[in-house]
Amino acid sequence: MGAHKQLKLGAMLHGISGNVGAWRHPEVPPDASVSLEFYKRQVLAAERSKFDFVFIADGLYITEQSIPHFLNRFEPITILSALAGITSRIGLVGTLSTTYSEPFTVARQFGSLDLISNGRAGWNVVTSPLAGSEKNHNNRKHPSHSERYAIADEHLGVVRGLWSSWEDDAFVHDKPSGVFFNPDKMHHLNHEGAYFKVQGPLNIARSKQGEPVIFQAGSSDSGKELAARSADAVFTAQGSLEDAKAFYKDVKERAVKYGRSPDDIVIAPGIAPIIGQTAEEAEAKYQEVASLASIDHALEHLGRFFEHHDFSQYPLDEPFPDLGELGKDSFQSTTNLIKRRAQEGGLTLRQLALELATPRTPFVGTPEHVANLIEQWYREEAADGFVIRGMLPSFYDAFIEQVVPLLQERGIFRQEYESDTLRGNLGLSIPQNRYSAAVEASVEGE
Amino acid sequence: MGAHKQLKLGAMLHGISGNVGAWRHPEVPPDASVSLEFYKRQVLAAERSKFDFVFIADGLYITEQSIPHFLNRFEPITILSALAGITSRIGLVGTLSTTYSEPFTVARQFGSLDLISNGRAGWNVVTSPLAGSEKNHNNRKHPSHSERYAIADEHLGVVRGLWSSWEDDAFVHDKPSGVFFNPDKMHHLNHEGAYFKVQGPLNIARSKQGEPVIFQAGSSDSGKELAARSADAVFTAQGSLEDAKAFYKDVKERAVKYGRSPDDIVIAPGIAPIIGQTAEEAEAKYQEVASLASIDHALEHLGRFFEHHDFSQYPLDEPFPDLGELGKDSFQSTTNLIKRRAQEGGLTLRQLALELATPRTPFVGTPEHVANLIEQWYREEAADGFVIRGMLPSFYDAFIEQVVPLLQERGIFRQEYESDTLRGNLGLSIPQNRYSAAVEASVEGE
Ligand SMILES: Cc1cc2nc3c(=O)[nH]c(=O)nc-3n(C[C@H](O)[C@H](O)[C@H](O)COP(=O)(O)O)c2cc1C
Ligand SMILES: Cc1cc2nc3c(=O)[nH]c(=O)nc-3n(C[C@H](O)[C@H](O)[C@H](O)COP(=O)(O)O)c2cc1C
Repeated sequence: MGAHKQLKLGAMLHGISGNVGAWRHPEVPPDASVSLEFYKRQVLAAERSKFDFVFIADGLYITEQSIPHFLNRFEPITILSALAGITSRIGLVGTLSTTYSEPFTVARQFGSLDLISNGRAGWNVVTSPLAGSEKNHNNRKHPSHSERYAIADEHLGVVRGLWSSWEDDAFVHDKPSGVFFNPDKMHHLNHEGAYFKVQGPLNIARSKQGEPVIFQAGSSDSGKELAARSADAVFTAQGSLEDAKAFYKDVKERAVKYGRSPDDIVIAPGIAPIIGQTAEEAEAKYQEVASLASIDHALEHLGRFFEHHDFSQYPLDEPFPDLGELGKDSFQSTTNLIKRRAQEGGLTLRQLALELATPRTPFVGTPEHVANLIEQWYREEAADGFVIRGMLPSFYDAFIEQVVPLLQERGIFRQEYESDTLRGNLGLSIPQNRYSAAVEASVEGE
Repeated sequence: MGAHKQLKLGAMLHGISGNVGAWRHPEVPPDASVSLEFYKRQVLAAERSKFDFVFIADGLYITEQSIPHFLNRFEPITILSALAGITSRIGLVGTLSTTYSEPFTVARQFGSLDLISNGRAGWNVVTSPLAGSEKNHNNRKHPSHSERYAIADEHLGVVRGLWSSWEDDAFVHDKPSGVFFNPDKMHHLNHEGAYFKVQGPLNIARSKQGEPVIFQAGSSDSGKELAARSADAVFTAQGSLEDAKAFYKDVKERAVKYGRSPDDIVIAPGIAPIIGQTAEEAEAKYQEVASLASIDHALEHLGRFFEHHDFSQYPLDEPFPDLGELGKDSFQSTTNLIKRRAQEGGLTLRQLALELATPRTPFVGTPEHVANLIEQWYREEAADGFVIRGMLPSFYDAFIEQVVPLLQERGIFRQEYESDTLRGNLGLSIPQNRYSAAVEASVEGE
């Protein structure tokens, strides 16, 4: 690991949080998921602390059983653009589904966000696990897990192709002659694949980071393959140091298999740090939030991962039921994890549902303890960085105020931004425009 | 006309402008169409002058012949969201096509912009005149003019339906009991029509203006019908007081036919004011910009309205060619206007192409002259308001600094915002949630 290589940090902005009961805490404004002020405050705090990026998750289907945050929240493109206008250095990463979108629209919206923010945009490519999403999109049949990844692969290729529509020196802007651009540097994609036909060119140019950073958050085999081939960063949920190390090694090796360097892909597990003056105080804080999730809501939340399966039919205090293949076509990696956790931990349905309703990552304790763990995961190649998932606003603030300074003192996290682009801060190179690259290659070949 | 009714003003933000040659002027930053700073400056100036809204146009297909502004510009949802973060009172209106979008996505993105801006969003519903748009969207056949409007009608109905997913008192946020929302106030749309199937509910609630303001910019019969049935505001191009009065009367009458009040729909022609100390100075400024459009670029620009017809095949200094029905399926109303203008004015192809390359509205002259014309159009019911289309940044500034104060002195334009929502400022009522409305109606009926 190079002397100058440093830890990366992202902050997941999610208003009242993704936990089932956290919104009930007195400290949480219950409309936080649609409050610009709330998001502003959090992004500015992250930028002051030199975070690499903020992250906005997304989903396309809700039911009466959805957790509160999913029912009424900002759409990622809009809230990220709003935050672009009030920040200058921090990256802006958001989820958008390849299963329910047009590549031309996605390329434009993220391309535009990238120019608005002057090279700070990132796209978290997801395939939409929830089958119900089809009901909001003209009942075009929700594709199977593997087909969704095949679509994602082609979609991402088209979007990236469109991002090469204009070479960096295409716009000559020559006022005297009236030549606005050089037509040799404008490119038609002319893509015709199994799922998409897109001619181009895109009506927006590249930003100074070349292209938005590609995140990927699926952890199934197909998800890891997509990440290894095409992603710049992977957002993942890992419960233990061992699991995280295995995942890290696995994804980096797959990337190498595709001819990439291990440094070309940043691996960032999501963690939910809870800080106390003592370990007990931190633990008590976790318990306080966990106690706000009712068992009914916890069961509904669990069901969502298993295609809205009704868990209220099972006895609560007996071992977690055998669900066979259920979940495989939806949240494949998450449901595998849940099944494994239930079995290895010998958990009852109640225990498992409550655990999942308020996930407890190992990062609970004093500031030193949490900083130590972060440093260990980082040094032992379990993570290149982390995405902080807040539960309560005060947990988020405590991490920023008490843990980040320790990481800075130890020299593993920056005190100043190295770059003003997201790629620059993540240590990623700027992808060449594919046509400029082709010309250079052919000149070199001569 | 009520004593307190006032003129409405919008500003079209379009970087290097929609004119063919204006970007060549020394005063224009040639990257203005992708410069956040440029857009910021213009929106803040409009807000200081109490404009009702800014407006962002859009298109989905470019060729080498497109005018410079179309080649490389911000996408509307993203730039409007960015401007939402730095403004507090001005409305934010943008174009989005019903032919190439999913109603669920559109409802979410404009709904989210509406919440981010706290009730200041507007959607300009367009049907995408350019057939080439299909090439960027999986070659799904570009529908005919009339079918595009049928799609638009259903699409808009679905979007509006989704905006009623949550009644205003749905989110009870009761922390002690753990009840986040009242399920009786969450609604499934269950729409199944000729073009769309959308179940809902939408995962975002209404803003304090109820729903984004609906703009419509098509001036064909089908366009006027759509506007009369469903739009809150109409953006139109009118060349003379007489034409504008006829259009105004026509649209208001159609609205009344659909059971609406004439005040329910705001009619706003686009104008391109040019201010000078004298009439001659203003005219010279127009000529200076017009001289920057080469005849080649002017012909290409003209061709775009006629399905990319190649006008270089005709003699330049003979009467405008007979094009038969060409243009009817694309920019129907605009091409009708062009044909009429060529015939009535006895124009040659060269004259017409150059005139269209730098459209000259009557609003050219001293500040008093332009203020007089505005007042006349307003008082004689040719317009409820205007959308200012800038050519050069200094033309825009001159209108704001020299004409707006005159309109304020005369008492026909506000000195302070009456409201903090776009609907409030436009004098439009807040549409009721359709389910709350249904309940009230049934209670009244008892
Ligand atoms: C940390 C993390 C964040 C995720 N964020 C999103 C998201 O914002 N939206 C979404 O639809 N799916 C999200 N997912 C789900 C994945 O993208 C993926 O669809 C799901 O895990 C199923 O795919 P898999 O079986 O490959 O993991 C996330 C998953 C993880 C682990
Ligand atoms: C003032 C004005 C602004 C317009 N803005 C847009 C726009 O931003 N995007 C677009 O695709 N069409 C725009 N149009 C075109 C119309 O929406 C419409 O598609 C076109 O005029 C053809 O329809 P019609 O025959 O009903 O007028 C605009 C038209 C006018 C008159």
